[in-house]
Amino acid sequence: MQHRYKFIISYEGTNYSGWQIQKKSISIQSLIENALLILMKKKVPLIGASRTDAGVHALGQVAHFSSEDELDMGKLQASLNGILPKDIRILKVDKVPLTFHARFSAKGKIYHYFLSNGPYQSPFVRKHSLHFPHKLNFDSLQKAASLLEGTHDFTSFANNQLCGSAAVCPVKTIKKIGIEHLEDGQVRFVFEADGFLYKMIRNMMGTLLEIAKGKREVESIKEILAAKNRKKAGQAAPALGLFLVKVHYESSSLISSMDSKCKAPLGSARSN
Amino acid sequence: MQHRYKFIISYEGTNYSGWQIQKKSISIQSLIENALLILMKKKVPLIGASRTDAGVHALGQVAHFSSEDELDMGKLQASLNGILPKDIRILKVDKVPLTFHARFSAKGKIYHYFLSNGPYQSPFVRKHSLHFPHKLNFDSLQKAASLLEGTHDFTSFANNQLCGSAAVCPVKTIKKIGIEHLEDGQVRFVFEADGFLYKMIRNMMGTLLEIAKGKREVESIKEILAAKNRKKAGQAAPALGLFLVKVHYESSSLISSMDSKCKAPLGSARSN
Repeated sequence: MQHRYKFIISYEGTNYSGWQIQKKSISIQSLIENALLILMKKKVPLIGASRTDAGVHALGQVAHFSSEDELDMGKLQASLNGILPKDIRILKVDKVPLTFHARFSAKGKIYHYFLSNGPYQSPFVRKHSLHFPHKLNFDSLQKAASLLEGTHDFTSFANNQLCGSAAVCPVKTIKKIGIEHLEDGQVRFVFEADGFLYKMIRNMMGTLLEIAKGKREVESIKEILAAKNRKKAGQAAPALGLFLVKVHYESSSLISSMDSKCKAPLGSARSN
Repeated sequence: MQHRYKFIISYEGTNYSGWQIQKKSISIQSLIENALLILMKKKVPLIGASRTDAGVHALGQVAHFSSEDELDMGKLQASLNGILPKDIRILKVDKVPLTFHARFSAKGKIYHYFLSNGPYQSPFVRKHSLHFPHKLNFDSLQKAASLLEGTHDFTSFANNQLCGSAAVCPVKTIKKIGIEHLEDGQVRFVFEADGFLYKMIRNMMGTLLEIAKGKREVESIKEILAAKNRKKAGQAAPALGLFLVKVHYESSSLISSMDSKCKAPLGSARSN
């Protein structure tokens, strides 16, 4: 009989080539699979909800794997955290139905992007926040962000590195882009959507920052969306400010089924 | 004519041997003095308020130096931050009277010590917070901390590496030891005093944590203070959880002159 387990994982992405296994570099997925191999004496494929890029961090990445044996979850968590480096922590282990799939069952995701807005950046956030020493035009930023909210074709904000051969549905629903001023000049952007295309958040952030600097008009967001052309949007913001915070699995107000909009296979969507 | 300048400095202590210049390792003081040498084309001694130990961090270290030339402070700050590594930042430059001395003029200091209290530590605080996976007896901790508040001879909590030949006054006044629960299992200890002896906070923290674990009685604090013997207190807590947050220079309610209690030269006190 098969058993399926779900992990909630936090990691500092600084030292890794991203979530997904790469041939010549160290990924978070490969380190956890190696730890599972040590513990379970067999190769156990681990499926992550989000293939976070090199340098992107996670507070709540989700992954699942299957086992023929029923496992002691507390012991598994303690053993994995004992083997793994301290910049990767298994925060939670749950048993889930065999129908649960970390990627395909995901109904929505929350990402945060952090800026340090001031002339000099605190040493304590330098690896987790983009230093943005320019004046932030907060009003323009808010207006531009609100134009990105809702259901749109986000082709212009997606890099076209698709996974597999199936077409990716470029229509996503952004429930909210929140912009919050924290202490010490830190600014947190909260992105909540049913899903994100590859590099979509970093491309939106890069474009928003050009607007914040006054290098681009607020209304240009409408033109960028309409163009369905990656070249119309701004450059991707650096990975170091981006955090995968939460993956939603239960029904909630933010869900709008991707199937109903595009009939594309959910599994083909690569999120950033 | 001489001019005197005051810096407020933040640094992550992880990669350094501490504030003070050491023969065979890299200190924060030496890096800033080297940067000043590059900019001013002469050796400029820099005096810090606190000789923080290896691995101890600072949000508000204070230092001063003198110059025969009047300096453009904005340019100086920008140039220094351009030369220094990103884990050391000059947050502020002020011109001060020639009577100002970062160490001797200090009237009080605030330090924070951070714990991560839970079975597993977040990757994002692992270099700035002590992982303490044991249950915290918060009541005992509060009572023990309150016994350390006030004016006492703290000899039992001081390592006896004195600076120079003059005797250090072991009588200090702790205005407050606050214990605050933050989010995600983080606990912040706030230490505010007119001054601290060498390794005093880490020795107090180590002793408090033994009490929190139930390995030592709350009332033992009284005996430790009375004994004036370093061997009676607990082991020093690790450096990585400790932050120098603020150095006070103006008159305030926390001031109680060290001279009036001991008549020892202020300059001889080494703080941790």
